This record gives sequence, structure tokens and C-alpha cells, in this order.
Amino acid sequence: MATKERKILVAVDEGEESTYALSWCLKNVVTENSKDTLVLLYVKPPQVVYTALDGTGYLFSPDIIATMDNYRNKVAESVIENAKKLCKDLQDVKVETRVEQGDPRDVICDAAEKMGVDMVVLGSHGYGLIKRAFLGSVSNHCAQNIKRPVLIVKKPKTSPATSTS
Amino acid sequence: MATKERKILVAVDEGEESTYALSWCLKNVVTENSKDTLVLLYVKPPQVVYTALDGTGYLFSPDIIATMDNYRNKVAESVIENAKKLCKDLQDVKVETRVEQGDPRDVICDAAEKMGVDMVVLGSHGYGLIKRAFLGSVSNHCAQNIKRPVLIVKKPKTSPATSTS
Repeated sequence: MATKERKILVAVDEGEESTYALSWCLKNVVTENSKDTLVLLYVKPPQVVYTALDGTGYLFSPDIIATMDNYRNKVAESVIENAKKLCKDLQDVKVETRVEQGDPRDVICDAAEKMGVDMVVLGSHGYGLIKRAFLGSVSNHCAQNIKRPVLIVKKPKTSPATSTS
Repeated sequence: MATKERKILVAVDEGEESTYALSWCLKNVVTENSKDTLVLLYVKPPQVVYTALDGTGYLFSPDIIATMDNYRNKVAESVIENAKKLCKDLQDVKVETRVEQGDPRDVICDAAEKMGVDMVVLGSHGYGLIKRAFLGSVSNHCAQNIKRPVLIVKKPKTSPATSTS
């Protein structure tokens, strides 16, 4: 096991579920002496351009759109920075980062295939019922569609110590 | 990582998907020097007792039912034996085996909770459409319902060498 070079894709986002999944992966899957490459992927939500109801123009001014875009980039940077910090103790592990844009379900599936990764690690979102109805479950979709091992890490609610320590 | 004691539940069955999942887990998740405990769980299908259409008796004689039961036990033994063989190279890893009976979806979820395992490893069945419609997907159900990390290992169809070597 120690000599293998594996490429592990970890999808990261703003949620604590995702931070937990990455930490769990670092503790339980990635070995210190391995030559694993960890690819941290953050998927930016697509830019939503609202048009006015009568179709005559955009609901938001270019200024506001630029501000929103700026905000999304800041979030992306901060998520990636936090994820990299979590990885910094693993000296032999290469860490790559990627920021892409789109529906996370499609982007993660595509990335896993294109990069030919050995494993995909995902947190399981604690979305409420309504958000889940719109978004669908990213982890379910990926588990069903990615033709590679998929690890879905759930943040325990009752006794966090059981799985993390 | 080396000093942790983890309990990893691996669901095994007759399919090659399950054998692949166990092998992948042994190569990629279980470390040789760890004190991991691997629990191999085989779920026997429940005994189906067909009654005659008019409700007057059973469709099968006790002899035939005994023969079918005997067969199911033989299958269980053979699956567990094969799984244990795969694990024999890992000297420091404790291997426990369990055979239970019922709907694999419920049995695996219950076992994961009751044993308080750190991770559940499942193969992803290549059931055809019809069988899947009746059975549902064991891996989907478990990924959604088990409140612990679930690793779904898919047997690659195109280039097996990529993930196994």
C-alpha cells in the first residue's frame, strides 16, 4: 500500500460536512508515507443572471453582478485555503487544487472521469428538505454515476469522537 | 493513523462486485500495521415460504424447503470462506465474520449502527434493471441511511488495472 500512487479527489465546499469529510479522509484513507495525490475540488455555483420579468433587461445592474461574482470568488479562495490548511501536516502527499463552475453533480462526475482518479471523497450535505428537493443530493448522484470508488463521509450527530479519534 | 483501532464493516456476497470491493478495501483502506478489525458480513436472503394459492398448505414439501435452506447455508459458508481467504495476508488485522438473514438493506444498516463501525464498505451491484426495480439498490439505500462513512466500490468495466494495481 505504501508504494502506490493514488489520486484521490475530494470535493470541498463551504459546509462543515465537507470539512469533516476531508479530515476523515486525511485520517483514515491517506497514508503519510504514500505517494498519494489529493485533488481538492471546489465547485462554484453557476452565475445566475436574472432577467426582468418582461424580458427587457437584467434585474441586476452590472455592478451588482460584479459584486456577486467577486463574492463567489472570495468564497472559493477561502474554501480552498481552509482545505489546504487541513492537508498541511501530510508532508509526502501532493495536494492539487481546482476551482470549477457549474452544477456540482456534473462537475464532480466529469472531473472524476477525466482525471482518472482512484477514489472520490464527498461529504454528505445536511441540506434541509426544501433545498434538497431543488438541488438533489450531490452525494447520491455521484455515488450512482461515478464509475469509481466513492466514499461518502457523514458527520456524526451523536458522538463525534467515535469516528474522528 | 497506524495506532488507531478502527472497525470496518464489509458487506460480502456471491457477486464479483463484492469480491472486488473487499480487495480494493484491503489494498486502499486497511493498513497492514493498523489494529483494524474487519467485520465480514454476509446477508442470507430470507427464507421464502410459498403457500398454495388456496391457502391450504405449503407449495413445497418440508424436504424441498430443507434442501433450499441447506443450499443457502452452503452459499453463505462459501462466500465467507472466500472473503476470509482474501484477508489472510493482513496479519495484524483482526477478521470477524457474521452471517445474518433478511433484507440486506436493513441488515447492513442495522449492523453498522449496532456495531458502531467506523466505516462501511459495499460493492455496487451490477443488477439488471428488473432485479434492481425489485430489490432497490443496496448501496444507494445504505449510503443514504447509514450515519457513518460509506465507501461504495465499483468494479471498473474498461480498465481494471487502473484501480486495482
